Amino acid sequence: MAEEPQGDAAQDGDSAHGHSHRHRDQVVARLARIEGHVRSIREMVLASRDCPEVLTQIAAVRAALQSAGKVILEDHFESCIVSAVERGDHATATEEFKQAFSKLAH
Amino acid sequence: MAEEPQGDAAQDGDSAHGHSHRHRDQVVARLARIEGHVRSIREMVLASRDCPEVLTQIAAVRAALQSAGKVILEDHFESCIVSAVERGDHATATEEFKQAFSKLAH
Repeated sequence: MAEEPQGDAAQDGDSAHGHSHRHRDQVVARLARIEGHVRSIREMVLASRDCPEVLTQIAAVRAALQSAGKVILEDHFESCIVSAVERGDHATATEEFKQAFSKLAH
Repeated sequence: MAEEPQGDAAQDGDSAHGHSHRHRDQVVARLARIEGHVRSIREMVLASRDCPEVLTQIAAVRAALQSAGKVILEDHFESCIVSAVERGDHATATEEFKQAFSKLAH
């Protein structure tokens, strides 16, 4: 499987997960930025930067993670949840949505 | 003071920030783990792992960041805020605490 950001990722996604994610490459790029942001916060702490500054950056990373999570949830909604509704499987659709949403909403 | 695994960063820290942080090494270690966790989430997305699973891991990283932030706030309280109170500078102490806490409380 060639699961790189550049390529036919959606098809690969199908094989592993049963559906594709429209914004997968965007999510991967966001997560890469978040990873770099966490690294830079670690460097701030090592450099004994001011605590409120460090806390501001931690809050920014938490917001960025929540934002990436929202994109994942939207993709999830657009793919498996909508598919379940289209199949007439409303119970599964509702359960899928509730499960995914509950992960994000705290 | 030996707050740094390798080197004299604590001294540098003092000069940069005016006080030391008792749990700095612990915070650095937590941030390193969080960075690795974010990387593993990116790999999950690339492998098209199930969305609720990915969202669970995102929530776990957000909680870990909040938890690291609390340790930073506690250290901050113990050092600059307490110092300000001891100097009789209650206004600065209160302002320092409010500023730092407001970063964490959302």
